[in-house]
Amino acid sequence: MQINLKSDERIDQLYSNQIKIIQSNDVFSFSLDAVLLANFAQVGNKRIKKIVDLCAGNGAVGLFLSSETAAEIAMVEIQNRLADMARRSVELNNLSTRIRVINDDLKNTTAHLPKDSVDVVVCNPPYFVNYESSEKNPNRYLAIARHEIKTTISEVAQVASDLLKTNAKLFMVYRPDRLTDLLLSLRSHRLEPKKLQFVRSKPAQPANMVLIEAIKDGKPNGLRILADLVTHEGTEYSTEVKQILYGKS
Amino acid sequence: MQINLKSDERIDQLYSNQIKIIQSNDVFSFSLDAVLLANFAQVGNKRIKKIVDLCAGNGAVGLFLSSETAAEIAMVEIQNRLADMARRSVELNNLSTRIRVINDDLKNTTAHLPKDSVDVVVCNPPYFVNYESSEKNPNRYLAIARHEIKTTISEVAQVASDLLKTNAKLFMVYRPDRLTDLLLSLRSHRLEPKKLQFVRSKPAQPANMVLIEAIKDGKPNGLRILADLVTHEGTEYSTEVKQILYGKS
Repeated sequence: MQINLKSDERIDQLYSNQIKIIQSNDVFSFSLDAVLLANFAQVGNKRIKKIVDLCAGNGAVGLFLSSETAAEIAMVEIQNRLADMARRSVELNNLSTRIRVINDDLKNTTAHLPKDSVDVVVCNPPYFVNYESSEKNPNRYLAIARHEIKTTISEVAQVASDLLKTNAKLFMVYRPDRLTDLLLSLRSHRLEPKKLQFVRSKPAQPANMVLIEAIKDGKPNGLRILADLVTHEGTEYSTEVKQILYGKS
Repeated sequence: MQINLKSDERIDQLYSNQIKIIQSNDVFSFSLDAVLLANFAQVGNKRIKKIVDLCAGNGAVGLFLSSETAAEIAMVEIQNRLADMARRSVELNNLSTRIRVINDDLKNTTAHLPKDSVDVVVCNPPYFVNYESSEKNPNRYLAIARHEIKTTISEVAQVASDLLKTNAKLFMVYRPDRLTDLLLSLRSHRLEPKKLQFVRSKPAQPANMVLIEAIKDGKPNGLRILADLVTHEGTEYSTEVKQILYGKS
């Protein structure tokens, strides 16, 4: 298949799943958080027929998940250029029959997909509050991907809750420094946090990411704090992260 | 000094701080959570003049803290028998001049202590929601100490917030399965969570306790997830816990 790459683009591949993804340092490149989110999300159950990736960026999370499920996947991305990258990556991997890229503001998602119809939502949202004073990336693509310029954690939770069936799961990656915002936003939109996993570079370091599983209309509490995911050993990736990136040897 | 012990009582001592505490398996014995809370709370700063221990039980947390600070300490405990144990322990340690035991419902605390006057609040509250259906300890003393029979996390947060000065700190120990309740209750009472430390028996185990620091009227977010505190190595306490219990060798 012939896919046109723009001058700033390259194709990256994770050895663990053979998925090829169009990346661009000028526009958007997935990073470890997308990989860890895809690894954390549980989508292997055959009853899972419909998955939505909100804030899909260049489609990395949904593409990674495609190798673990036969479900249909919808990716929602507001930025034209990123949605275009995602679409071309979907073609590159011959996944157009079951992955659909919706290039729209996520608040319009239920115009494209019925409410209460989705089995799993995954989301790697913008992490940073968009304070007037916040220093934002001068690159508009990256600023929108990182700061709450076009959406907020509360809106993401609202849309995820609208889409999910009762008892269906949301998986997200987020920043621990906003854990209170995260838990509040989820619970106030009927998404009860059930599992948290903190990610650290070393065991003695503060966490730099958090992975969360929430259940729509789940009973309050019963939250499990899983064992930490430690990303580094010395200057290298840890065995656990190497297995996620390069596959089990 | 002559202190009368009841038939079910004994005196326990932590080697690390020489504090003697009256305990009773029939009524109340402090356990590791009290020790870890006292260790987590920062009270050494000389500007800290007034500390309140809410849900004080037999006074263990406040008594442990007394060896790290010259501040006045008020312990608030609703159960007469436990407050009496705490009072006798205060006498046993010759601390009556600066530790006061208030035997009252914590919701009345501001009748004993002025609002906005306290530098540090510590609290080891009841952890379990008092569902009609919950199995509770048939021992009423322990049931009240463990279940939200006489107070709730929301009421604890309200009282702590009323007592604390602006920018003063609350330190609590809690159960991770109710982390969402905890963070919501604190933030909704102007106590912004700033540090979390999860406690696990082994690195690969889910957390079984969480220590939290919150700041009254602190700016939203900026929460740090500290390195885990691991309590065991094999069948023994870990080096870190041994140091907390027995002192630095």
